[in-house]
Amino acid sequence: MSVFTPPSRLLFGPGPSQVPERVYQAMAQPIVGHLDPFLFEQFEHIRAALRELFGTKNQFVHALSGTGSAGMEASLSNFVLPGQKLAVFSAGYFSERIIDMGKRHGANVVVLNKPWGETFTEAEATEFLNKEKPAVAAFVHAETSTGALQEPKAITGPAHAVGALTIADCVTSLGALPINVDENGIDIAYSCTQKGLSCPPGMSPVTASPAAIERLRARTAPCPIWYLDYGLLLEYYEGSHRYHHTAPVSSIYALREGLAAIMEEGVNKRFARHQNAHQYFVKRAAKEGLSLLVPEGRRVPNLNTLCVPEGVDDPKTRKRLLTEKGIEIAGGFGPLAGKIFRIGVMGPLATEPNVDLLFDSLLECMK
Amino acid sequence: MSVFTPPSRLLFGPGPSQVPERVYQAMAQPIVGHLDPFLFEQFEHIRAALRELFGTKNQFVHALSGTGSAGMEASLSNFVLPGQKLAVFSAGYFSERIIDMGKRHGANVVVLNKPWGETFTEAEATEFLNKEKPAVAAFVHAETSTGALQEPKAITGPAHAVGALTIADCVTSLGALPINVDENGIDIAYSCTQKGLSCPPGMSPVTASPAAIERLRARTAPCPIWYLDYGLLLEYYEGSHRYHHTAPVSSIYALREGLAAIMEEGVNKRFARHQNAHQYFVKRAAKEGLSLLVPEGRRVPNLNTLCVPEGVDDPKTRKRLLTEKGIEIAGGFGPLAGKIFRIGVMGPLATEPNVDLLFDSLLECMK
Repeated sequence: MSVFTPPSRLLFGPGPSQVPERVYQAMAQPIVGHLDPFLFEQFEHIRAALRELFGTKNQFVHALSGTGSAGMEASLSNFVLPGQKLAVFSAGYFSERIIDMGKRHGANVVVLNKPWGETFTEAEATEFLNKEKPAVAAFVHAETSTGALQEPKAITGPAHAVGALTIADCVTSLGALPINVDENGIDIAYSCTQKGLSCPPGMSPVTASPAAIERLRARTAPCPIWYLDYGLLLEYYEGSHRYHHTAPVSSIYALREGLAAIMEEGVNKRFARHQNAHQYFVKRAAKEGLSLLVPEGRRVPNLNTLCVPEGVDDPKTRKRLLTEKGIEIAGGFGPLAGKIFRIGVMGPLATEPNVDLLFDSLLECMK
Repeated sequence: MSVFTPPSRLLFGPGPSQVPERVYQAMAQPIVGHLDPFLFEQFEHIRAALRELFGTKNQFVHALSGTGSAGMEASLSNFVLPGQKLAVFSAGYFSERIIDMGKRHGANVVVLNKPWGETFTEAEATEFLNKEKPAVAAFVHAETSTGALQEPKAITGPAHAVGALTIADCVTSLGALPINVDENGIDIAYSCTQKGLSCPPGMSPVTASPAAIERLRARTAPCPIWYLDYGLLLEYYEGSHRYHHTAPVSSIYALREGLAAIMEEGVNKRFARHQNAHQYFVKRAAKEGLSLLVPEGRRVPNLNTLCVPEGVDDPKTRKRLLTEKGIEIAGGFGPLAGKIFRIGVMGPLATEPNVDLLFDSLLECMK
């Protein structure tokens, strides 16, 4: 018996999302050492599944020992040198975080801003990138703060035309919708475990293209962050398995099991299930006279941003949902504070009955 | 049923160490969100227990979302500014890691070197620090690569005399022996969850003195690492609980339960149990004609470094132990490669029968 009993929650927020029981059970299995051959076998299973979900043949596919934000910081610190130009496409909170991190790492950050919730066209990207000619261009695939989905090719095409590497924040997309890293020309991608992968938070799946690895190898100064240095991590993960840090064995077990569950369901089936649940969400919202922030065609399917109706108290509604129904959803922040509910429909919750449960509860608590 | 079944291991290495079943069970409890009031309650339980184990009244006591190495990197990047002088006392692998990280962060690193396995006297520290007058002095309390224990006051006294902040690596000591952060004049300390705390790897308990926090507040440039920025983390952990990153909820549950188990045993009783197991280890080693690398009086009690006897094959012995007995121990590295076995006797394994089990198995596999 544990000294504490967590309250029972249905995690309809932007993450962490609902975790299947089998993942919890896997995490409760006894650990082995961080240099145990058994652990390296699990890494290989993880890498194979992540390749399928990222849609890549990249050799470099790993899960870092930190959350999605660590993946963002690793992507910037390994691939953007101090003084190099980093172009950021910014229309939400997480692109602003990329800007912040880029500046901390001494990059020359240039930004194309649009209002939160919008996305970028190929013409806009081309004009900006042709003018700036950056070394690296970064964008957010599925913006968690707004629910807007960016078409990757609109940015990667013009970025490659000027010789820039591309970084895509796939924190909210991995596991819930296709990313197609190779086909979409994404050089560097990072994600998390606690959204589309239905695992607990704590790790960050990452990938890098051969062109990115080539640029990594050409570095003369080491990565400023020892903990996230891809050169050192490669030796641990892929090479001689030389000790770097003590990998979080239980989180690796959880990820291994969560990915196995996804592979059993089938990647395309899973994507379709999320898309269907999203369509059902949209239909139900319309039926209830509720509107979505993001126009059709560029919505993140697993993260719906519902406009808070006139006269409804945002924090009060969310608090009631949590305490009376055990349902977590999130509010907006920044320019969208008080204006939207952010509702994740992911993993085990991405079904029509669960969407109905969510709406029934939300409508009751909005009263 | 999970898709995999880990081999059964007795973790007698330097870490990860054996985890009690109740910690696994706690980790398998359903997660809540990273902004859920329940999670912040757990943080407060964790902070109270860590204060007792660190031996501090510091307000700033937290567990970072990364392994012990992330704690090292956080301590350096938050408290050592680029260009500032960082003095490192180096006699093992982990002090060399401090040097590496310090350089990556642009510190002016000066080093007092001694052969691996030695420690520093107050006279040596005084001479070095009076000459160098650093902004920060860093040392390893319990050196995992050698098994040598540094008396903190020998360094912190002379460091404070020249106005330096002190950083202590307590990765191997926390939870197994007294650290007495306040009494020993340690300004900044970091540790891990997978050694003396008997939890799975993945988090890094840290603390900082009021003097250190004052220096943090005086920073004009932000911490170069966004993910480990104590200023931002403080707002999430202690202040308005403003979102920073998505905290690893399951690892927090594990730490919460592991610390509860330690508090139930009693901190002093636990330290005494580890000391007793160590004494028994030393006695048994002598009985078997085996010698320890580190002289009596400055040995890390929970990490014994046994000299590999003449004619014994180090890697073969460890491989046999793992495959035939399911027992993990570690070898030496750097200048100690092939020369020592590193044997952790921690947590549930710190008992006389377990020490006997270890020796019986080791002797058999050395043949």
